[in-house]
This record gives sequence, C-alpha cells and structure tokens, in this order.
Amino acid sequence: MDKMYCYVDNEIKLMEEAGVPVTDLLVQRGYGIFDFLRVADNKPLFLEDHLERFFNSAQVMHLKIKETKEEIKKIVADLIEKNNMPFSGFRMLVSGGDAADGYTITAPRLIILQQVLAAPDGQLSSKGIHLVSYPFQRQLSEVKTTDYLMAIWLQPWMKTKGADDILYYQEAGITECPRSNIFMVTLENKLITPADRMLKGITRKNILKIAAQEGIEFELRDISLEELKTAKEVFISSSTKRILPVAQLDDQVYQLTGSSSISYKIFNLLLALEK
Amino acid sequence: MDKMYCYVDNEIKLMEEAGVPVTDLLVQRGYGIFDFLRVADNKPLFLEDHLERFFNSAQVMHLKIKETKEEIKKIVADLIEKNNMPFSGFRMLVSGGDAADGYTITAPRLIILQQVLAAPDGQLSSKGIHLVSYPFQRQLSEVKTTDYLMAIWLQPWMKTKGADDILYYQEAGITECPRSNIFMVTLENKLITPADRMLKGITRKNILKIAAQEGIEFELRDISLEELKTAKEVFISSSTKRILPVAQLDDQVYQLTGSSSISYKIFNLLLALEK
Repeated sequence: MDKMYCYVDNEIKLMEEAGVPVTDLLVQRGYGIFDFLRVADNKPLFLEDHLERFFNSAQVMHLKIKETKEEIKKIVADLIEKNNMPFSGFRMLVSGGDAADGYTITAPRLIILQQVLAAPDGQLSSKGIHLVSYPFQRQLSEVKTTDYLMAIWLQPWMKTKGADDILYYQEAGITECPRSNIFMVTLENKLITPADRMLKGITRKNILKIAAQEGIEFELRDISLEELKTAKEVFISSSTKRILPVAQLDDQVYQLTGSSSISYKIFNLLLALEK
Repeated sequence: MDKMYCYVDNEIKLMEEAGVPVTDLLVQRGYGIFDFLRVADNKPLFLEDHLERFFNSAQVMHLKIKETKEEIKKIVADLIEKNNMPFSGFRMLVSGGDAADGYTITAPRLIILQQVLAAPDGQLSSKGIHLVSYPFQRQLSEVKTTDYLMAIWLQPWMKTKGADDILYYQEAGITECPRSNIFMVTLENKLITPADRMLKGITRKNILKIAAQEGIEFELRDISLEELKTAKEVFISSSTKRILPVAQLDDQVYQLTGSSSISYKIFNLLLALEK
C-alpha cells in the first residue's frame, strides 16, 4: 500500500509514525470520544451528521475541540487527496490530553485517521448474521466514547457460541450491538427500535427518516429479548454496513424473506441516500 | 526536570518522544490493563504483588505479555537508575496492540512509565477527606483495566459537591472509590470491607494481613450506604496514599479520633511494612 497520512494534534503525519503521547489520558485512563464514517468514491458520507454527533460527544465528556467543524472538513478533504483511498473509513478521535496528575483533562488532542474499509455489499445480504445476547449496559451509552472493553473482551466467548456479533440487553430490554443499532419488524409490519440507553447511529436516524417518508409505521420503545424472538424480521444498522439482516439470535432462527422484506426496501432507500 | 525515560514496546525512550501508535486498540478502543506502584527511596514497593496482579489482569483480558516478570523487574531497575526519581510512581500498561480490523487483539504492547508522585504523609491525615456517593458499577471490576471514563467524567460534578473523591455504590452496597478501596470500623471495632465487584488493592491485601496478625476482627461482605453512615471510622486505602480517613460521606460527618483510632494503628503498621 502507498504511504498513508493522518492528522494528530495540529500536524499531518505519516500514519506509521503517528502516536498518542504516553502522557495522554486516552492512553492512561481510556478517556476519549470518536466518530466513524464511510467514504464512498472519495465522498465522506453524512459528514455533517457525524460532525454534529462528534462535537456533541466531546461536549458531554468535557472535551473542548480546538479545531472548528470547517477546519475538520478541510483536514478530511486534505487526507482524501493525499491518501487516495476512494472507498474507506474515517476515524476522528478526541483524547483527554496530557494530565500531570493522570486524571485532569487539559488540552484534548484531535486525531483523524483514514482507514482501509471494504465497501458494504450493494445489496442486502441474503445470508444474514447470527447474534448472541449478553446482559450488559454500556456506561455513558448515549455518547460515542472509545470504551469497547466489554465488546472486545467478549470476542472469544462469542466465537465459542458460533456467533458473528453480540446483542446487549438488560432488565428493561435489548439496547444495541457494540457497533450497531438493532431493529425489529413485527408480524403487523411495524418497525420498532429501542429509544434510549444506547448510541444513536446516523444510519438509525436515516432509517427512521425513511420510515416516516415511506409511511412505514414505526415506534421507539423498549423491546424485551422475548418480544424480539417473535419478530418477523430483525436487522442491525451501522454506517459501515448499512443494514444486515439477523438470521439467528441465540436459539431463535429467523426466516429471511429477501426482496419481499421491509429490510430490503429500507436497504435500497439507504443506498439511494448515499448518492 | 532532567530528561525522563520510559519503556515502550521493546525500547527505552525519552518520555517526551514516546507514543502509542494510533493503530493500537488502546487508542482506538480503550482496550488495555495497567498497574501502578510507588517507589520509596528508589525501592519499588510490593513489586511482586503488583506484578502478580498485572499478569493476572492481562490474562483475564486475553492480553499476552511477551516480557517475563524478571525482564520487567530489570526494566524497572534500569529506569530507576536512569531517571533519578527516588520517590515516584511506576505505571505499567499493556495495550491491545495493532488491529487491522480495529477490533482483534494481536500483539500487545508493554509500556512502563516512571512518574512524579509525592510521597504520602508519614502520618495519618488528621483532616480526612470528603466523599460523595454515586450509583455505578464498573465493568470487569476485578481487573485493573485502563477504564476510568466514569471517574474522570464525574470530576466536575464531584467538585460542585465540594467533595474530594467519589464512592461508587449499587443495589448490593458500596464497592470502591475509583482509585481506592474502602473500609469501615463498626462501633464494636470490627473492620469491614466489601468482598467483591471491585478491584482488590495491594494495600487492601496488606491491611487484611495486618488485621489478621494483630487480632483485629474483620469481615469481607456487602455494606449498604446506610450501614456505612453508622460507622465509627471510615477510611480509604491505596498504594499511593496508604490510608486516608474519611471525614464526610454525603451529609454524614465522622468524628476523627486520631491516635486512638484503628486507622491510626493500621497506618503505622502499613508504614512499617514498607521498610
């Protein structure tokens, strides 16, 4: 691969030479936020939405970003030009900055990385994925923090279950997969997704917008694991995958209905939104 | 200050030039473990205990440390010699390593930093500290992960309460402060500390050893916030502070009894253990 460049704390650097100082709270205390978006044909998708969420995450976490949104857009454009990766991903992070006492937020660092990312399939997967449920509530779950401790820790366990991803749930119901939102379609063709205690994805937002435009009835509310198992369709959504149908959740197998499904319809409308 | 050196991934480097690659899971996903110990008069205190816990944390988190305990002791000794900081702290971290997919643990990096740390007072604080309680359960709480998201996020709130530190509690009772264990002494002079759902400190372990040797009755069990407020003495313990008496918890004020307290007795025995 050609040399790749990234932005760290005021400088464009070669990726292989870029590091976060060991004195930064991101390294010492796991304190940081990020956002991730997809680039298609050199166009960063839904950049405004991602930037809005990024700045909101930073604000909630008491992290002041010294760059403006316009400056970040300029950095993204520069990296797109330098890196020549027309289909890829952008990871933007804000760290807590150096802390002499190992604890106090000082001057947050902005880090922007362009990363290899395969474009998702141009049509809805006909195979679907296998989810396994796990009882867990993410801390500060409505903020996109860099905390994926539980998700990564659970990977070996997940593999022993033969699953592709994890679905978190707690007493009030299911919430999210570590990197995706979850939706169900009822037997009455109503679309339902949890309302809170999880990260609100940009693709989730687009799906709800599409549902409103297309007259698909939808509801934001708690869903129990039991109710989820009665669904006609279950799917997950994310910026990197658009929509992936769920073929199995724990022992429950779902019949995938391809082009007659609501997932199929929404997938194609999401695809059109990217143009 | 003189130049300070640290160890990052096979190399001794100048601290100001040492970074963790932006591709590491520690940076991108907050995935890492650490341990922290104090150095007094160039002697790393309870190094064996800290190393044992460090290797255990790594193992639980699926992180393979390529250096042996003996090699780490050698690195610590080298840094003590190079850095000339007879009273200080050592932070040892293990990161998840680079992950092409931003998710899969590959080759963990070992990072060892010597840091400025004031020696704790040579006698028990006569002032005590003010704790404020907050309902929270740390994830994977018996492992010393780098996750201090909640603790750092709560700092501004804590300050509005006029408090010095936070005490986490949940339904079953209190657990820990973000960087300390907590103990109470009942009116009957029994020492009680929570048994689980928190990090087991090396100082906590030494206190329990001292209690057993000195015939101080003790018990490991859940303590409700209400029970804690009836205590004769409350104190927190950590490697950096030894013991600090608690003068106030939320609205409850405790009378500090100085040299007639059990805290005082234990403090002096801890001090002796460091010789």
